[in-house]
Amino acid sequence: MEQQKIRAGIIGVTGYTGGELIRLLLQHPKAELIALFRLSSEEAVPIHKAQPHLRGLTKLDCVPYDEKLLKGIDALFLALPNGVSMELAPKLLEKGIKVIDLSADFRFRNPETYERWYRKTHIAQNLLSEVVYGVPELRREQIRKAFLVANPGCYPISALLALAPLLRRRLIQLDSIIIDSKSGVSGAGRSRLEASYLFTELDEDFRAYGVASHRHIPEMEQEFSDLVGESVRITFTPHLVPMVRGIFTTAYAKLAKPMNLSDVHALYAEDYAKEPFVRVLDIGELPRIKAVVGSNFCDISVVVDERTQRAIVLSVIDNLVKGASGNAVQCFNLMFGLDERTGLWHGGLAP
Amino acid sequence: MEQQKIRAGIIGVTGYTGGELIRLLLQHPKAELIALFRLSSEEAVPIHKAQPHLRGLTKLDCVPYDEKLLKGIDALFLALPNGVSMELAPKLLEKGIKVIDLSADFRFRNPETYERWYRKTHIAQNLLSEVVYGVPELRREQIRKAFLVANPGCYPISALLALAPLLRRRLIQLDSIIIDSKSGVSGAGRSRLEASYLFTELDEDFRAYGVASHRHIPEMEQEFSDLVGESVRITFTPHLVPMVRGIFTTAYAKLAKPMNLSDVHALYAEDYAKEPFVRVLDIGELPRIKAVVGSNFCDISVVVDERTQRAIVLSVIDNLVKGASGNAVQCFNLMFGLDERTGLWHGGLAP
Amino acid sequence: MEQQKIRAGIIGVTGYTGGELIRLLLQHPKAELIALFRLSSEEAVPIHKAQPHLRGLTKLDCVPYDEKLLKGIDALFLALPNGVSMELAPKLLEKGIKVIDLSADFRFRNPETYERWYRKTHIAQNLLSEVVYGVPELRREQIRKAFLVANPGCYPISALLALAPLLRRRLIQLDSIIIDSKSGVSGAGRSRLEASYLFTELDEDFRAYGVASHRHIPEMEQEFSDLVGESVRITFTPHLVPMVRGIFTTAYAKLAKPMNLSDVHALYAEDYAKEPFVRVLDIGELPRIKAVVGSNFCDISVVVDERTQRAIVLSVIDNLVKGASGNAVQCFNLMFGLDERTGLWHGGLAP
Amino acid sequence: MEQQKIRAGIIGVTGYTGGELIRLLLQHPKAELIALFRLSSEEAVPIHKAQPHLRGLTKLDCVPYDEKLLKGIDALFLALPNGVSMELAPKLLEKGIKVIDLSADFRFRNPETYERWYRKTHIAQNLLSEVVYGVPELRREQIRKAFLVANPGCYPISALLALAPLLRRRLIQLDSIIIDSKSGVSGAGRSRLEASYLFTELDEDFRAYGVASHRHIPEMEQEFSDLVGESVRITFTPHLVPMVRGIFTTAYAKLAKPMNLSDVHALYAEDYAKEPFVRVLDIGELPRIKAVVGSNFCDISVVVDERTQRAIVLSVIDNLVKGASGNAVQCFNLMFGLDERTGLWHGGLAP
Repeated sequence: MEQQKIRAGIIGVTGYTGGELIRLLLQHPKAELIALFRLSSEEAVPIHKAQPHLRGLTKLDCVPYDEKLLKGIDALFLALPNGVSMELAPKLLEKGIKVIDLSADFRFRNPETYERWYRKTHIAQNLLSEVVYGVPELRREQIRKAFLVANPGCYPISALLALAPLLRRRLIQLDSIIIDSKSGVSGAGRSRLEASYLFTELDEDFRAYGVASHRHIPEMEQEFSDLVGESVRITFTPHLVPMVRGIFTTAYAKLAKPMNLSDVHALYAEDYAKEPFVRVLDIGELPRIKAVVGSNFCDISVVVDERTQRAIVLSVIDNLVKGASGNAVQCFNLMFGLDERTGLWHGGLAP
Repeated sequence: MEQQKIRAGIIGVTGYTGGELIRLLLQHPKAELIALFRLSSEEAVPIHKAQPHLRGLTKLDCVPYDEKLLKGIDALFLALPNGVSMELAPKLLEKGIKVIDLSADFRFRNPETYERWYRKTHIAQNLLSEVVYGVPELRREQIRKAFLVANPGCYPISALLALAPLLRRRLIQLDSIIIDSKSGVSGAGRSRLEASYLFTELDEDFRAYGVASHRHIPEMEQEFSDLVGESVRITFTPHLVPMVRGIFTTAYAKLAKPMNLSDVHALYAEDYAKEPFVRVLDIGELPRIKAVVGSNFCDISVVVDERTQRAIVLSVIDNLVKGASGNAVQCFNLMFGLDERTGLWHGGLAP
Repeated sequence: MEQQKIRAGIIGVTGYTGGELIRLLLQHPKAELIALFRLSSEEAVPIHKAQPHLRGLTKLDCVPYDEKLLKGIDALFLALPNGVSMELAPKLLEKGIKVIDLSADFRFRNPETYERWYRKTHIAQNLLSEVVYGVPELRREQIRKAFLVANPGCYPISALLALAPLLRRRLIQLDSIIIDSKSGVSGAGRSRLEASYLFTELDEDFRAYGVASHRHIPEMEQEFSDLVGESVRITFTPHLVPMVRGIFTTAYAKLAKPMNLSDVHALYAEDYAKEPFVRVLDIGELPRIKAVVGSNFCDISVVVDERTQRAIVLSVIDNLVKGASGNAVQCFNLMFGLDERTGLWHGGLAP
Repeated sequence: MEQQKIRAGIIGVTGYTGGELIRLLLQHPKAELIALFRLSSEEAVPIHKAQPHLRGLTKLDCVPYDEKLLKGIDALFLALPNGVSMELAPKLLEKGIKVIDLSADFRFRNPETYERWYRKTHIAQNLLSEVVYGVPELRREQIRKAFLVANPGCYPISALLALAPLLRRRLIQLDSIIIDSKSGVSGAGRSRLEASYLFTELDEDFRAYGVASHRHIPEMEQEFSDLVGESVRITFTPHLVPMVRGIFTTAYAKLAKPMNLSDVHALYAEDYAKEPFVRVLDIGELPRIKAVVGSNFCDISVVVDERTQRAIVLSVIDNLVKGASGNAVQCFNLMFGLDERTGLWHGGLAP
């Protein structure tokens, strides 16, 4: 007898992360996607109106969100703008629905941090003690037991996986960390209707934005501090690359004591040996975005600049998969006792 | 003693064709750019707010349009949305200012055509008898004498230059003409704030739009009909290419009588031998967008499909230069008795 | 008890279609990929050396081709340069291995056509009577029984699906067919080391190539002629779009008798109603590459230019999936009695 | 009477920097381009065979290099692979020709540095005392008097202009400098026929290369050390962006003493107030590649990360103009007593 499938729904299905969630869950052998909700709509529309690539793959329409339609749902993915999940999550949890939230609402243990960087009052602070920050590579056991998972920001996940092996062993000088990240444009979402996001403005362009002021800074600092057991401050610069998907993070830190490349590489190989979705490249190999687009993998290379005694760690992810919806499905798998590779164990799209 | 420069102004300087006009006129040795007007603004702003690449090259601010500021201006370029030029042009002409209009307002001899395709009432019909449709390669002498020039649409200019040698000799079957054009995205302009023009939606995409219904159809048909002296109907399909600039037109027509490639090529070589900005490629060479980006050139190749007795003519232009602002400056040169290459005689930007 | 899986292998795994075959077969629930062969190599290498995106997903190395290693293989996909399959296929078929060939070697019923257009002597002409041209939408029953399938060229499949409903009913004038296609660059393959395929030369460029002389012309003409039962000649122009994947075909033909759009659309809806991988868009919708990238779908739109009585049919596919490896897997499914959607029933990657 | 033009030639005209030199010199009102040499060719070929965008703009063919053809030449630009200029330059200087060399051959005062990083024996060491490293913003007076100028590498020029104001005042900790640069692909040149530079491999990709080992490191360190009067070591990571032109440099350094943004910005404004080609953006503005493509400008923004007391300086240039051929023409202007803006004072191409 076939095991009953886990019934999943999504709130927020017209954006890019919503589209990826649908795509991944439709391929997931142990999940049944039974509801596609949209907060702002007033009528049901075929999902291909918002996601033309999914035409014909599901009979589900995108329907206005209504609590009455939640019956029978085991898990809900929230792919919503910041500030909305903290309104919805308490009610969903009360109904016994497990929640994976892709917004920033539940990423901070300290609500003041959220309020300072996101300029919103946090209205579900009582949940902050039970939410789990969803990086399986760092908090696998907690995620297994969680009812509410805060899926990390795309930049933080790339930086965390890049530096965790050095941070947890305190092998780098804590005031020397610089995260220089480069992102594909899909990170800006589909609803950003500003001239600066037009094709003509971004193609053949490269820009920085939010220099030393991006909202992912406190998220990285929270998790970095956690790993070392001490408050860490970083410098972070995000940039926009004229490509659709992918985050490339170049992380710099001074080594706390002299180490050579093979020593550092060995630590990464050790830490990630059993991680299905982290691939540590061989010494001398460098990562590239094209090797991870469309997949849940994070590829990592380690370099030691012996002339300056700096570690340079390079990591790549697909911002919409490992940086968002794929990681969310990985957490979902853990929350429901499945092999975490389920529905995600496939190669990306290259070239 | 240096000859006095022609004093030029532009109305509409925040869009892409406006930016190109500024760039070209600042380099023009016989023109002095003395006014940058914006219809919608209420205050003067430095031009680099809208055109950051031009920072530092001019001290002119972009100022609200005001008739009082027109004094001393010899020529005005209008880079405005359709429907506005027909309001402004009569007053400008009255003041003795020569006008080069980049909108569609004055492109049709028959105002009904304009009204049907553009869904606007034409309010300056009395000017239609004196306006010249500004293709120097077809109407050089008229342009020299004109006070009001209607700069052609980008697709029509690419198609006209592609087919003129065959049309004027009636060497093709008139009901067999198909224009399949492919345009860079800048043709959509900077003010088109729709999700479908976002980088993420257009990069790695290719689309058709306005199939058999684009507003440039009546413009091509008017000019084609003029060349053959008989009413011509065409099929036209525009497409969007994930690149910023350029129009590539593939024009198809059945030969009216058997001809071989060298015969057809000879006609093109003859017709365009003295045209400074039309480069007929050698037999066997094919045009590419990259050879014309940033320049006022139109490159043309001729192929004869002997198996089906069709002529296939391929033309490339930069839609913002020969397809808009560069051609406008070429007309300006003619209108003021200058060598038409003045300020335009430079190579494009490749790679 | 689980059904035994079909054991599949691939010869030619370092190119783009080879990579796609591996990706698709690794996800295929009824196939077991057991051999990755390379003709030119002399030693086994990990597959991620050629296909870095597949790192970690298979333990198979890429090994030199050796007939001794064929034991136990049920099906072989040949992703090889033209001219090689006709050497290998006879031996493979003798061993009882079913063959899906992605080269041009077996696409022509008339070996002279092959020899004229590909300038090679055909050395396996005896197989030409039993090979099936692998378009499931046109020859499903034959493919089910085939031992040797010739997977079609990417352009032909896009053109065939675009025009089949009109051709088989003879609703278009046979001498009026023009196929204007636009392809992503991956169609050129990875081994084309010419300056003109460098990023710097193709980005922000758009070109035509092989105008009226491309090798896919005889393939289209063979199949078009088959559908109408009479010899058909077409004009075909392929172009290169600065994007990686996708073919967009704009097909033009004069209607043989007056028809309106809803009539034509109804025929397409009817013919493709049961085709899993052909999606006929609603009247007024136009296809785009981004809706099919990474998937096996072909999206088709129909337009009627009532002014010129032409049908304009627009089709899009991913050239590496429905245009190559995905279609090959679809044929494989049919050849082994599987639901043809197996392993292919997933959405593409958008944005 | 018109002043006689300076007669210039180029050796190495088929690559990207060669193409840019031709384009710029053809537009230069005080220079006459009289010779286009190619080292490897055996016969004269029209320049449009290598540079199709320049078709029709010059009657000069590209001819095999021959010393006999040097008569009458005042200045030669060498756009050659590393290792060739040091063979040619001594003879050219003997003939009284001023030389601007775009290779690395003359960039290092210490020949051992060259030999270690470029793995070539330096065969013109006697010239190293008279060569001037050609950054007009740093060595204007020396360039005016120079007979041999070594045009800087593209990355070094972007990094030097970014950090010079802080370095020359020693306002940053010298062991804290990190240069994270992102380059368009044209930097790799046209002759790099490797699969990794194909369009299909680079489009939608982003990579690092030469991490902590790139040959521009010693060049930056030589010049940085010069500015502070003490040996400086840096960490440098170059990356490849899927765009044709442009270098974006993100430079990081710890402030040596607490400073706020307006103080730091004031220094930049002061240092570059009279520099025609350096545009210091206002506080809060960030640079973008699209604002400099096709022009000789370098745009610079300054940010202070007050939380970590780091200066973050962002600079953008067109790697083929200010990063190569444009800067070379700027040096040429200085060497011949011209206004250094001559032939370069035009806006870039945007969008």
